[in-house]
Amino acid sequence: MEGGRIDGKLEMSDSSSELVKQSGDEISHLAIDIGGSLIKIVYFSTNSKCSTNDEAPTLSKERKEVPNGDLNHHILSGRLFFVKFETSKIEDCIKFLSSKKLQQCGAQCHHSHADDKIKIKATGGGAFKFTDLFKEKLGITLDKVEEMESLVAGANFLLKAVNREAYTYIGGQKEYVQIDQNDLYPYLLVNIGSGVSMIKVDGDGKFQRVSGTSVGGGTFWGLGKLLTKCQSFDELLELSHQGNNRVIDMLVGDIYGGLDYSKIGLASTAIASSFGKAISENKELEDYKPEDIARSLLRMISNNIGQIAYLNALRFGLKRIFLGGFFIRDHAYTMDTISVAVDFWSKGEAKAMFLRHEGFLGALGAFMNYKDGNADLCPPQLVEQQTPKSSNCIVDRIHNSTRVRENENGAIDCRLRVSSSFKIYDEVKRC
Amino acid sequence: MEGGRIDGKLEMSDSSSELVKQSGDEISHLAIDIGGSLIKIVYFSTNSKCSTNDEAPTLSKERKEVPNGDLNHHILSGRLFFVKFETSKIEDCIKFLSSKKLQQCGAQCHHSHADDKIKIKATGGGAFKFTDLFKEKLGITLDKVEEMESLVAGANFLLKAVNREAYTYIGGQKEYVQIDQNDLYPYLLVNIGSGVSMIKVDGDGKFQRVSGTSVGGGTFWGLGKLLTKCQSFDELLELSHQGNNRVIDMLVGDIYGGLDYSKIGLASTAIASSFGKAISENKELEDYKPEDIARSLLRMISNNIGQIAYLNALRFGLKRIFLGGFFIRDHAYTMDTISVAVDFWSKGEAKAMFLRHEGFLGALGAFMNYKDGNADLCPPQLVEQQTPKSSNCIVDRIHNSTRVRENENGAIDCRLRVSSSFKIYDEVKRC
Repeated sequence: MEGGRIDGKLEMSDSSSELVKQSGDEISHLAIDIGGSLIKIVYFSTNSKCSTNDEAPTLSKERKEVPNGDLNHHILSGRLFFVKFETSKIEDCIKFLSSKKLQQCGAQCHHSHADDKIKIKATGGGAFKFTDLFKEKLGITLDKVEEMESLVAGANFLLKAVNREAYTYIGGQKEYVQIDQNDLYPYLLVNIGSGVSMIKVDGDGKFQRVSGTSVGGGTFWGLGKLLTKCQSFDELLELSHQGNNRVIDMLVGDIYGGLDYSKIGLASTAIASSFGKAISENKELEDYKPEDIARSLLRMISNNIGQIAYLNALRFGLKRIFLGGFFIRDHAYTMDTISVAVDFWSKGEAKAMFLRHEGFLGALGAFMNYKDGNADLCPPQLVEQQTPKSSNCIVDRIHNSTRVRENENGAIDCRLRVSSSFKIYDEVKRC
Repeated sequence: MEGGRIDGKLEMSDSSSELVKQSGDEISHLAIDIGGSLIKIVYFSTNSKCSTNDEAPTLSKERKEVPNGDLNHHILSGRLFFVKFETSKIEDCIKFLSSKKLQQCGAQCHHSHADDKIKIKATGGGAFKFTDLFKEKLGITLDKVEEMESLVAGANFLLKAVNREAYTYIGGQKEYVQIDQNDLYPYLLVNIGSGVSMIKVDGDGKFQRVSGTSVGGGTFWGLGKLLTKCQSFDELLELSHQGNNRVIDMLVGDIYGGLDYSKIGLASTAIASSFGKAISENKELEDYKPEDIARSLLRMISNNIGQIAYLNALRFGLKRIFLGGFFIRDHAYTMDTISVAVDFWSKGEAKAMFLRHEGFLGALGAFMNYKDGNADLCPPQLVEQQTPKSSNCIVDRIHNSTRVRENENGAIDCRLRVSSSFKIYDEVKRC
């Protein structure tokens, strides 16, 4: 399981700060996705230490001409990092951003003077909700990017540009999927955040939100917290790992006296009614093990999402379902339940696939939204081999693993093409 | 709301026994549906008091020749009654049946002697699970009828034979639906018991279980019991009536700082994440009002069922969705949520309709399964006007309200055509 996991150090805000400190990087630019439960941040760093004198930082060594001879742009080598915070602890996020001195390091280079306004790309509902807070505390303007657009841009980037990004999870086996870029669309993108969005994706920027459900990660965590007193999502997930849902779910066999209901293809072990056994037993909440409750809850929600996803995939004839969002967390049981649900309902016709950078689709998409023109720098964007869609930034394709590569911490090595007018050199010197 | 309610007296097992006592009836025959949470019983009574001497009971007055001159059959007038018990209190049900002296009163007339075996039609998983218990305690053999077949037969009977059975519930208004029997099929039958079954019905005996979900009435009751300590489903439902789901559900406006997410048509008041607000608040279970929790739970489950029902209706191009099962209980908020969900997702194309005898579809269907031949009596069955499908029993159509009529207690007045060899007269005399 370790191979596919976004590094544990990224999971907690403190650890995230730690990671950033350890890497000694400086944020050159950054995008943020503020959801109902979590804040996700993606930032690009050139891996240079902030110089303390007037010497040019190591960063300058990475500055290269674009191979195709476009003299108006330069290429920067660096790395995309992924950090998250709980939305309820937004102050930690503010502190983190404050410590990174975005104002001085060129997170957005609209400003010609240090006191000019700084803009960062932001998506998710919190980009609206916390506009004033960011302005007040950090002097940062949140430049809003539509949420679904961000999710789709992030997913498309990952699926096209990052090697070993998508995988299936069947029978306890993780298997990476080779993405044929000529046969990627259409697909169903299921983003499981606090709630769930289901988006039919037909191409770059071509999509439609076709469904969703309010029974998502927030439900698992919220109900789980009330039922088990767990203090974090990860604690709850860990707990569920040890539990047995049969203690509290009413199974087909519980109703049928241990028999299958074979006429309609339901095994005796199939769940007839989630939490249904709690009805008939003279037990109160305290009489159940928290781990059993966590397991029932996880299975109920995962199965439900798998079923609704399948029904929507069926509706539009989509064979591939990619799942993102921070609900899954590379958790074997979650993935297994969703995979089995999709397989069961579709009779093997549709396939559930998971993404290694699952939780950062929106933040990545917002990051991709930096455009040349007003801005001086641009984020990784895929350049199509035959027909380049973007002339202002570049991240090479999956096949060129020397340029786009994910290291073991989930960070992605990549190169940015920036406009020549972007003065990252000067900006960094000012740190 | 009272007009459409199965009488409250039927809701509790004690009250049910009371009702039967009050009506002074004797069960002439009976069918039972034993589900995971509830046992549902339908029985036919001729409304005769059991005679204490050798005089012929009033029942005999109801004996008539069949109008079409079929001398092999007679018609009995009487009433179908509906009773339920909790499955966990099956002993109450056993006591009830025992008190009715089925052995002596001809519940099934296979037996030529009092000590012969008695058979009653039974459906639901409990018909398998409790086979031995019924045999041991009552000497009764449960003659099993397939569960889905029973649900469909029960629904078809109600929709065709009982006036003012189906209704919509929109904007707080209940509106009875005129069923055009020539345009009834196909429809989606959604039976919400402990779990949920979704069945595409194409005609009498023509159906396919196309979907289902484990998030049903058992989930509402089970989770609700754990979260609120309510001791009964009805108590929980009553509680939800007073609650406010916005206290604990994460709304779109909670994420978007009070704004709508208009781009995808979600109002600020829409639920983004059921129970999602519990994540971020420093509250424990005890800090929330049970009524708010009950409300959130009810809305989560109702909305989810409405959505999955709609997706299945869409899949097969079905415009009408009939909802049965004991989850709904004529509860305004439940019906409103399901109706709104179906209307929202289908953009007004599909319609949710509820059934007055919602909880008894399976038991009614099992009742319809009594056939002439080995058995001597038969239950209400619809006789088609042009092409009678059954020559051995009759309940007249909805248009003939003098024969099939529902009284204010939910009981249905009807007439049975029984084989001439059925000796109910003698059986009753023996009581």
